[in-house]
Amino acid sequence: MSFAPFDWIDEEARRRADAGLVRTLRPRPAEPELLDLASNDYLGLTRHPEVTAAAADAARRWGGGATGSRLVTGSTALHAELERELADFCGFEAALVLSSGYAANLAALTALTGRGSLIVSDAGNHASIVDGCRLSRAETAVVPHADPEAVRKTLRAHPGRSLAVTDSVFSVDGDAAPLAELAAACRAENAALLIDDAHGLGVLGDGGRGAPAAAGLAGGDGVVTTLTLSKSLGSQGGAVLGPARVIDHLVNTARTFIFDTGLAPAAVGAALGSLRLLRREPARAARARTVATALYRQLTAAGLTAVRPDAAVVSVRAPSAEAAVRWAADCRAAGIAVGCFRPPSVPDGVSRLRLTARADLTDEQIADAVAIVRRTAPAG
Amino acid sequence: MSFAPFDWIDEEARRRADAGLVRTLRPRPAEPELLDLASNDYLGLTRHPEVTAAAADAARRWGGGATGSRLVTGSTALHAELERELADFCGFEAALVLSSGYAANLAALTALTGRGSLIVSDAGNHASIVDGCRLSRAETAVVPHADPEAVRKTLRAHPGRSLAVTDSVFSVDGDAAPLAELAAACRAENAALLIDDAHGLGVLGDGGRGAPAAAGLAGGDGVVTTLTLSKSLGSQGGAVLGPARVIDHLVNTARTFIFDTGLAPAAVGAALGSLRLLRREPARAARARTVATALYRQLTAAGLTAVRPDAAVVSVRAPSAEAAVRWAADCRAAGIAVGCFRPPSVPDGVSRLRLTARADLTDEQIADAVAIVRRTAPAG
Repeated sequence: MSFAPFDWIDEEARRRADAGLVRTLRPRPAEPELLDLASNDYLGLTRHPEVTAAAADAARRWGGGATGSRLVTGSTALHAELERELADFCGFEAALVLSSGYAANLAALTALTGRGSLIVSDAGNHASIVDGCRLSRAETAVVPHADPEAVRKTLRAHPGRSLAVTDSVFSVDGDAAPLAELAAACRAENAALLIDDAHGLGVLGDGGRGAPAAAGLAGGDGVVTTLTLSKSLGSQGGAVLGPARVIDHLVNTARTFIFDTGLAPAAVGAALGSLRLLRREPARAARARTVATALYRQLTAAGLTAVRPDAAVVSVRAPSAEAAVRWAADCRAAGIAVGCFRPPSVPDGVSRLRLTARADLTDEQIADAVAIVRRTAPAG
Repeated sequence: MSFAPFDWIDEEARRRADAGLVRTLRPRPAEPELLDLASNDYLGLTRHPEVTAAAADAARRWGGGATGSRLVTGSTALHAELERELADFCGFEAALVLSSGYAANLAALTALTGRGSLIVSDAGNHASIVDGCRLSRAETAVVPHADPEAVRKTLRAHPGRSLAVTDSVFSVDGDAAPLAELAAACRAENAALLIDDAHGLGVLGDGGRGAPAAAGLAGGDGVVTTLTLSKSLGSQGGAVLGPARVIDHLVNTARTFIFDTGLAPAAVGAALGSLRLLRREPARAARARTVATALYRQLTAAGLTAVRPDAAVVSVRAPSAEAAVRWAADCRAAGIAVGCFRPPSVPDGVSRLRLTARADLTDEQIADAVAIVRRTAPAG
């Protein structure tokens, strides 16, 4: 037999090509050529001069990397500053910064559950939550999307330690989870509630304090939040927020925290810069929501099928994966970048365009974008 | 019943305290107060002015974050440049940059194996490899440390798709894997070989091209490498290197690539800066090895038990976890930072000090460090 351990990859590639599901990387230039409605830069801060200066200053002062695990040499005073300010802003006792939101979800789920415990997970949860459930060795019950009663029933049937987990805002459709009802179900069943606020921070709540704060849940005894620094805060990284004892527990037991290099100082600096800017200019959060509502109203007025946005993501249905790809390409050709979600990135198999309502979009840019999306829409 | 879903955490904390295994974060100041022998900054590049300038310039030019998944808006021309230069430097056809080495290992292991396939994993492999095996849904066989014959036998017993995975240099003891023999075993059994070169890149091979290059395996048909940008390259992030079809496959299927925000431009810039510096100053790699050998010789001459280093990590045995913690604290008090590995971070339960041989340590600093480690050594 000849040595060919990767020949199976070619067959899978052929199948993807036949199904029209090939993904390719499209590196972009430094100066944007397109109007961006595809990124997660909800507040338009990632290129803000204060944010990039904070990143640059942190790199110069602290170095290009954190140099080691947070437990060895990778914790700087800058990390501690960001953790204090994040916890304070979002209303939690303590925070822990990790190298990505993905790592934060893996850390929280593996450290707070385990063999013999139960995780109740919304069917629409992000891939990093799904992977965290798998890694945790806990029993995982996937419940229908946004169904607090199903969560309550599933928790009730399990006598031991349990935790319910949900995105606060679901990335694909931009809809919000019923957090108050989920928290009530968890309280009734003595279960912890883990909220992934990746798409809520900076957009929801007073001045962008996030979905848990908006629902009056921040700082609660049984509530833990994960978030990303790479969306509204225009940087990179993730964090876990919760009671101090939970954060201490993660420091001692979470493998994706202990065995990973600390977040680079430049990313810590950029996130701090954005957070301080948002505190000074809290109207940015409301503006992101206003832009989303405007996009939704104008798109539906134009006859397109969109989901009423609860935060800054506007999801528009496409008739098929191929149509979605062509639609997004036509938008690009006309000058706007939009997201295109299709299998396997969509839980229900329905392809859609995903438009980001950036706080710094002007009313004119919104109207232009809607006109392009409408003009390029597939027939039917 | 009162609402107390996290009370179990207090009991675990008490158990850790009783066992002397509490970990706490110790944020460091911007200006080093201690001589660093604890980080993974093997080439001493993380604070090099060229590297920090490259990070700062990238943040200013490209923004504080990548703004989205690499498949949506998160791929910049800078990412593509780093991927080309990494692949070229290490001798592979293609490369893919992720937000951490942890994410790179999860990506490679989950995308290249799966249900029905077999992973043969060295007992000393890093936590991120262990977690990648768990996430992959493949059958995982853990074989004794550095035992190519065990790998061959285990592969032979499995008829289907299979992959062997090993660290090139083991982080805890600093010893190297028998890569040539492992590759021969894989070739004989038509299995892929995944090498985590986190601690080899920048230290081993001609000019620091890494362990696969040193073993003549770089660019091989069935060979895939993962590496970190956060050690020798003084930045943050990870990468997977291999045949172009493997990299394309990861772009299409690896969840920790697809569902994660792209690496921040500053980290991409810092890694590129270090890589170019290393190409221009290839002697840095050999110097790291020379420093390690000097540390080892002087420590053993002083009567301490150390492992002969194959790269830039020098491991010194401690009689117990408590003694190791005290020893490391005494070293700190005397002016040097050293790593302290103890359960559960050590696969064999043996605690040790871990000294990093940075390429920029002077002979005088080496002698000073050895004198301190010797003077503070526990009795017995």
